Amino acid sequence: MADSPRDSSPEGLVSSNSNSKYPNFEVDYVISYSLPPPSPPSQQLAEAEASFSQLIHLLSKTGFAVEVRPGRPPTTPTSPSSLLIFLRIASHSLLEKQIYRYRVQDWLYGVRTAAPGPPNSLSEQEPITDAERLRLAYLLITKPVNEGGAGITPGVGQWRFVKSVFPLHDRKFNKEWIKDWSTKYILDDEDLLKIRNQFGEKVAFYFAFLQSYFQFLLFPALFGSAAWLVLGGFSWVYAVVNCLWGVIFFEHWKVKEVDLAVQWGVRGVGKIQLPRPQFKFEREGLMRPYKRLARQALQVPFAGACVVVLGGLILGCFSIEIFITEVYMGPFKQYLTFLPTVLLTIFMPTFTTLLTKLAERLTELENYETVDAHQASFVQKIFVLNFITSYLGIFLTAFVYVPFGKILVPYLDVFQLTAQKFTVEGKPLPTKEWVINPDRLRKQVIYFTVTAQIVNFATEVIVPYAKRRIFKTVEKVQMEVKGEKGAGVEWPKDADEEHRFLKRVREEAELEQYDVTIDYREMVIQFGYLSLFSVVWPLTGCSFLVNNWIEARSDAMKIAANSQRPIPWRADSIGPWLNALGFLSWLGSITSAALVYLFNKSGGGQLGVGSVWDIPGWALLLAILCSEHVYLGVQFVVRGVIKRLDSPGLQKERAERFAMRKELLERMVEEEVVSAQAEKGVGVRDGEKITREVLEEEARQHSGLGPEKVFWLRQRGAGESVEVGRGLIQLVSLANNNTAKRE
Amino acid sequence: MADSPRDSSPEGLVSSNSNSKYPNFEVDYVISYSLPPPSPPSQQLAEAEASFSQLIHLLSKTGFAVEVRPGRPPTTPTSPSSLLIFLRIASHSLLEKQIYRYRVQDWLYGVRTAAPGPPNSLSEQEPITDAERLRLAYLLITKPVNEGGAGITPGVGQWRFVKSVFPLHDRKFNKEWIKDWSTKYILDDEDLLKIRNQFGEKVAFYFAFLQSYFQFLLFPALFGSAAWLVLGGFSWVYAVVNCLWGVIFFEHWKVKEVDLAVQWGVRGVGKIQLPRPQFKFEREGLMRPYKRLARQALQVPFAGACVVVLGGLILGCFSIEIFITEVYMGPFKQYLTFLPTVLLTIFMPTFTTLLTKLAERLTELENYETVDAHQASFVQKIFVLNFITSYLGIFLTAFVYVPFGKILVPYLDVFQLTAQKFTVEGKPLPTKEWVINPDRLRKQVIYFTVTAQIVNFATEVIVPYAKRRIFKTVEKVQMEVKGEKGAGVEWPKDADEEHRFLKRVREEAELEQYDVTIDYREMVIQFGYLSLFSVVWPLTGCSFLVNNWIEARSDAMKIAANSQRPIPWRADSIGPWLNALGFLSWLGSITSAALVYLFNKSGGGQLGVGSVWDIPGWALLLAILCSEHVYLGVQFVVRGVIKRLDSPGLQKERAERFAMRKELLERMVEEEVVSAQAEKGVGVRDGEKITREVLEEEARQHSGLGPEKVFWLRQRGAGESVEVGRGLIQLVSLANNNTAKRE
Repeated sequence: MADSPRDSSPEGLVSSNSNSKYPNFEVDYVISYSLPPPSPPSQQLAEAEASFSQLIHLLSKTGFAVEVRPGRPPTTPTSPSSLLIFLRIASHSLLEKQIYRYRVQDWLYGVRTAAPGPPNSLSEQEPITDAERLRLAYLLITKPVNEGGAGITPGVGQWRFVKSVFPLHDRKFNKEWIKDWSTKYILDDEDLLKIRNQFGEKVAFYFAFLQSYFQFLLFPALFGSAAWLVLGGFSWVYAVVNCLWGVIFFEHWKVKEVDLAVQWGVRGVGKIQLPRPQFKFEREGLMRPYKRLARQALQVPFAGACVVVLGGLILGCFSIEIFITEVYMGPFKQYLTFLPTVLLTIFMPTFTTLLTKLAERLTELENYETVDAHQASFVQKIFVLNFITSYLGIFLTAFVYVPFGKILVPYLDVFQLTAQKFTVEGKPLPTKEWVINPDRLRKQVIYFTVTAQIVNFATEVIVPYAKRRIFKTVEKVQMEVKGEKGAGVEWPKDADEEHRFLKRVREEAELEQYDVTIDYREMVIQFGYLSLFSVVWPLTGCSFLVNNWIEARSDAMKIAANSQRPIPWRADSIGPWLNALGFLSWLGSITSAALVYLFNKSGGGQLGVGSVWDIPGWALLLAILCSEHVYLGVQFVVRGVIKRLDSPGLQKERAERFAMRKELLERMVEEEVVSAQAEKGVGVRDGEKITREVLEEEARQHSGLGPEKVFWLRQRGAGESVEVGRGLIQLVSLANNNTAKRE
Repeated sequence: MADSPRDSSPEGLVSSNSNSKYPNFEVDYVISYSLPPPSPPSQQLAEAEASFSQLIHLLSKTGFAVEVRPGRPPTTPTSPSSLLIFLRIASHSLLEKQIYRYRVQDWLYGVRTAAPGPPNSLSEQEPITDAERLRLAYLLITKPVNEGGAGITPGVGQWRFVKSVFPLHDRKFNKEWIKDWSTKYILDDEDLLKIRNQFGEKVAFYFAFLQSYFQFLLFPALFGSAAWLVLGGFSWVYAVVNCLWGVIFFEHWKVKEVDLAVQWGVRGVGKIQLPRPQFKFEREGLMRPYKRLARQALQVPFAGACVVVLGGLILGCFSIEIFITEVYMGPFKQYLTFLPTVLLTIFMPTFTTLLTKLAERLTELENYETVDAHQASFVQKIFVLNFITSYLGIFLTAFVYVPFGKILVPYLDVFQLTAQKFTVEGKPLPTKEWVINPDRLRKQVIYFTVTAQIVNFATEVIVPYAKRRIFKTVEKVQMEVKGEKGAGVEWPKDADEEHRFLKRVREEAELEQYDVTIDYREMVIQFGYLSLFSVVWPLTGCSFLVNNWIEARSDAMKIAANSQRPIPWRADSIGPWLNALGFLSWLGSITSAALVYLFNKSGGGQLGVGSVWDIPGWALLLAILCSEHVYLGVQFVVRGVIKRLDSPGLQKERAERFAMRKELLERMVEEEVVSAQAEKGVGVRDGEKITREVLEEEARQHSGLGPEKVFWLRQRGAGESVEVGRGLIQLVSLANNNTAKRE
């Protein structure tokens, strides 16, 4: 009985989410297997069937208990349907072996300091979390057959009908999580640990970063408010403090990150790379570095394309906007004002989507062996894209429109002339003389730091929910309408006790996969506004503080309600975003200096409304140069100080490693000492009285041995050596006596 | 007989330097034990005697064969004398155990990929080099008694009479080495490997760096010559190429360094830290980080002191020099011209020595636990010191004297007025109107890059040799003179067959210890001239190329003839000098831009001879800003490219580690697969025909089990799951048939 794998569910090895209200039936993973529409008839359905039975056999052979249930019904002949395949690691010992195997791997890669003990006491050594079990189960599903897995690669090649492989949400946990978070201000390590145990370190790192950032935001929020009240915008005091804050936050996070990784036992997992199933082998085995380098060089034209396409769009809309709001006085002005916004709203997402696709294609082309390398390269491209869409507008206003406006606006006469060609009732359209609008920059920053954040929140949380609702209704209506045309097939009815559960699973199968990259991107871009432009409007920090409190909760909601439960991957840092943060922080030192210098009205030689030619360029450049180097200097010092202060996590890790090494080496030393004592006869042979004559005599006796041997035989053991040395020392003191006597 | 340790000298375990002409008598180490002069009488000699016998007993107990011989004789009652203690690891098995122990330690720290095999086959696994044997012998002498060593700390506390512990030169090797090198242009990996096996990785890394730098110098030498002929000084083309070269050299060396470390099997030895015997334990055990940080902060006033003292001296001499050469016209001008040089020659070494002492004291105060940390901190201070002494003069000329000369020189009127007060025969001393000497900068750079290098060579090689010669002669004469006063004691005569050997050892005992830091410093400072100022005089690279060919040979000479054989320490990089190189390379991008901008005569808006106020400051700053950021950008790209190209060493290391891990994990997978096959019964149970009714019936039977159990019992094994799925798929295709029929 105890051997029957389906009955064995010892504590700690099986999902703890067997809560009564939302039972998960001990399911580890669900595969949503999509079936192509039967009409028009094709080979597809037959292929799907063949692939399906292979899938089941492979999974079963790998060691999964398998159950199949109907998924989305084929309501019309042209609509796709799906099957749901439920998986559970069948045998207790298989799971134990997997855990043991991966803990050994961790140890080999230096992630763990000590090798794990025997496989049957794993849960005693370290509790097995949901995340660990699910991660290993997923690896078992996806890794190649010759490594002991089932070799299922969702959506790729033979397995293109496998739409998704996902674990089920633990509804009880989710409910408590959301409830808990919505009533507290600060998330502590405990909260993060829960996330880590439920959703894995990759997601937990995002929330940890968010939390750390939130706490650090308190300072710019308070200081920013004070600065806003007392100093106003463009204060150099605020700029300096803000840059300093940026450095400290960045350096602090770098340490915190390592700390958390140690705490969660994942430091160094970056070294254990997941192979990418899409990786294409070249003829020589691995891809030659030069070839990849050449393809990576395509990033440069890609960045160029981004600048041209998005920059062109932004610049175009910018010009139109300026013309309409500040020059144009003709009819329909109140409607035309919205033209640039409309243009941006239509074209920006289109272009962004296109360029993102291009970035994906480029990254594919670079053909990385591992998931991490692929991801890092993709993130780099996405960052370039977002940098342009987010900041270019403000850059244009701050460093082109205001300082060079007077020079550039005559070129806008193109519009004016065009406008004036259109005559209304015989006379040209009225236009007004253009004057730079100095408030434009502030308005723009406020737009990006307040309005855009709210819009963002809406698109992230409310829109998907509404979309789902609407789709459902539409589908229902469609079904009813088509139902009369009588095309579809009904699935067999669910068993009563499973019905609610299956309904829930079908809903989860339709949800999107959670992508933490999007959330990181949002936060990093936000940090950029603070670092680059908050000197324009010091309340930025305040706005972000409020926003991020909500953000953490809405992201939690998004995971819990709007996405499939993520596969609990591990991570030991926020990855490529760290560089982006560093870059933005550094760039902030330059833009802040430039903004303060250009716009601060109380200083000497700056422009409120004027031309860049009114102020000494060398002073501006000197300000930038100084600011940047002070920044780099401060960073160097802060980095040094933080490094020397040592993080508790690193200390702990070092202590552990040290203890382990020490133990091993001490055991060896003991051995040595023991054996050295056994050999002691070698050295010390005291007692024998030696005279020079005896020694010479002996030496002569040994003269047949060659000088090298004789050299080491002159003094027999330590005792004799001491005697000889003492004799010489006596001689020396004798010298003194001699002199003393003579005197 | 085979067990008698004194007879056992199996191949590979004992010094291979048993050449007939310069026999080393199998000696591993010599301790030079200094005896205090007997007059005036004190407790010292008695203390030395007591400590001596303890020393011999400890060493003997640790496992050394010991022989004592007279060292430097006490020629007069007030002159110190010394004993020589010869050490040899007595037993073969002790050496084997030491090697095993340290190879295991290497493995634990990740320096070795694989654990070493059993102790008695070590030399088969990997040849034991002279360097490894001597390093372990030294550790055995110095490490604490409770770790199995003798606990001798030369010169510290109880062991203050231990003047030095040094291995003997392998004269035959040295002769061949010098001869070999003096006839070839390029040192290959073989040559470096020989150095490594003889003197250890720390010294070998210096020569590897020197060699790499020498080869890279070929380019600036050739290009510089061409630039000098075609473009002249202050060419921006040369500046750009030179900076680019700096980046590539720096990044290349970083990779090369890792490569060599892998090749020599020392990658990561930086993690194995040698404890510093001088480290003082605090009350809480380790030193609190804040306290150390506070003491490290003393570096700032130290740097300040350096700037004030050395800067003041340089500035003072500079002013005097300018006054005398360019203003003063009075009598004794030809002698007074030398005044600043005399002042510099007298005060500079004095101040430098004082400040070096201060740096030593500060580093002591920082109280590091490990030798490496101590060394790194000291090097940092030394670098500041040398930066000022080496470059400040040129900086003053380039960025103060020439551009601001016209403004500053009136202040030099102090001199003029003073001079004019001294009247010669009733009329004031003649002075001339001051004009900026534009050639001064070039002359200065040539002085530092040619003359100073030659002077340096002389002080490094010729002076110590001459000094030793002179000292010897003086001593001889003194002895002869005092001999008549009849004060000294003669040591007993050496045995005939040992006499030549002992004479040689006595000579070596008097030599200085080799300090690789001094040589590194010289090279890094030289690199600085190239990076910072070579745009002034593009032939700099040529001069350095010639100089460094000689430098490598003269450094070899220095080690072979003018120093004790160094203790063969390990290292995995050139250590703290790497940062210094990076800093100088970066600073070069700024100074080059500034120099080109200020002095280039063919461009617009620059000054040949003039004031900085004649040129637009913003343009200068823009040039600097651009140059620096282009530099940083290029560095980023080059770093990325080089990292992606991968070094052969790293590839090899990764492959080794990978192979080791793979083997271990594969063994586990095999196990898994085998046991999975044994358990196969779990999953697949094909064949049984299923109908919906049967299933339902079964479910009903199991209804007592609770829905969770029943869920997993509906389909028995993979076969049934496949059947159920196929049934559903059939249903879907049926839908099509239905529609088809209906249509």
